[in-house]
Amino acid sequence: MTPIVSAYRQVPPPAQGLVRDLRVRWALEEAGQRYEERLVSLGPEQTSPAYLKLQPFGQVPAFEQDDLVLFESGAIVLHIAERSPALMPDDSKQRELVRSWLFAAINTMEVPFGTLLYVEFQGIERGSSLHQSLVTWSEKRLGQLAAHLGDNEHLVAGRFTAADLMMVSVLRMLRSTDLIAKHPTLVAYKERGEARPAFVRALADQMRHFESNPPMKM
Amino acid sequence: MTPIVSAYRQVPPPAQGLVRDLRVRWALEEAGQRYEERLVSLGPEQTSPAYLKLQPFGQVPAFEQDDLVLFESGAIVLHIAERSPALMPDDSKQRELVRSWLFAAINTMEVPFGTLLYVEFQGIERGSSLHQSLVTWSEKRLGQLAAHLGDNEHLVAGRFTAADLMMVSVLRMLRSTDLIAKHPTLVAYKERGEARPAFVRALADQMRHFESNPPMKM
Repeated sequence: MTPIVSAYRQVPPPAQGLVRDLRVRWALEEAGQRYEERLVSLGPEQTSPAYLKLQPFGQVPAFEQDDLVLFESGAIVLHIAERSPALMPDDSKQRELVRSWLFAAINTMEVPFGTLLYVEFQGIERGSSLHQSLVTWSEKRLGQLAAHLGDNEHLVAGRFTAADLMMVSVLRMLRSTDLIAKHPTLVAYKERGEARPAFVRALADQMRHFESNPPMKM
Repeated sequence: MTPIVSAYRQVPPPAQGLVRDLRVRWALEEAGQRYEERLVSLGPEQTSPAYLKLQPFGQVPAFEQDDLVLFESGAIVLHIAERSPALMPDDSKQRELVRSWLFAAINTMEVPFGTLLYVEFQGIERGSSLHQSLVTWSEKRLGQLAAHLGDNEHLVAGRFTAADLMMVSVLRMLRSTDLIAKHPTLVAYKERGEARPAFVRALADQMRHFESNPPMKM
């Protein structure tokens, strides 16, 4: 009955507070739904046959409820949202818009952000033409998001929805950069999301394991 | 009544046959649904206020039907699939699995592929450590997909679904590489998708514009 969400026991500091079980924890907290955790370790445990049966790529999160097993944070958040008025408006057209924006967060906004962070992690220097092209691409997407948002506090339906949950989660990936700071409305948008009690609880529940388990050897 | 799908008049050759309106065209063809096209040009037209009202990032595809406007190929394909037995099984658990795999295609598989192609486009040399790390990451995901697929012809429910439509679309992004050739089952999987009459029609309808309009100045 109670769903089970998989999460890592420990991750390197740059990933702490960003691992994708956070998105699912946040959705469940907004929906007022309790859940249990299935902790897995980076390395052999995540690619064990038992875990690959839950998550074919050995990632977190997987979501288990009764005999249903879901994977991919986008699919799980959508599943939760479509069953919770806390995350979805009633109106069918607005529900479709929430879905469009949820996909936009992970398949339009996240693409340059993730590429930029990967390239930095691989040691490509700031100021190189590759790095600069990714900064330019990221800035373009942030500018388009800011233009769309305007003075609105939320993306869809004048209220918090799963679209904001996913967009704020994706904007948080940029915490090691100064890209969002150039857009005060996006800073405020992100901070409104992060100030929600459901987010605060979800983040604390992810971080608790990283703080109590031995740090990883890098 | 008839939906309208936006598509580009012309794109550079490396993008021809891969632009994301193809995914929506394919879904509509599988569903047996006729549609109209709204052609836009790369450049000022795609970021005009009129087009940004349909697609906030100036991309294709946008999908209009009556007073509904959707964007993001993932959201649009899911919208079509949930209304067509040609793309979704009846069973609710299998429908959830189709959704998990659709997200896995665009938010797990596509990530290393897209990053690799971007980095190559930016002139990073094959054999550099950045390029090699992306090849390794892509190979890992292809190996996991091949392992999951095994001898099955489809990802979910023993039949073609929107999960296969999206996964084949993502595998096709690698056409300029030899990465898929190492997995004969994935080659066969991709080719089965590409041989479907609905795919053949969708591809021809995208390519028709590129072949009849003047090529872009590069």
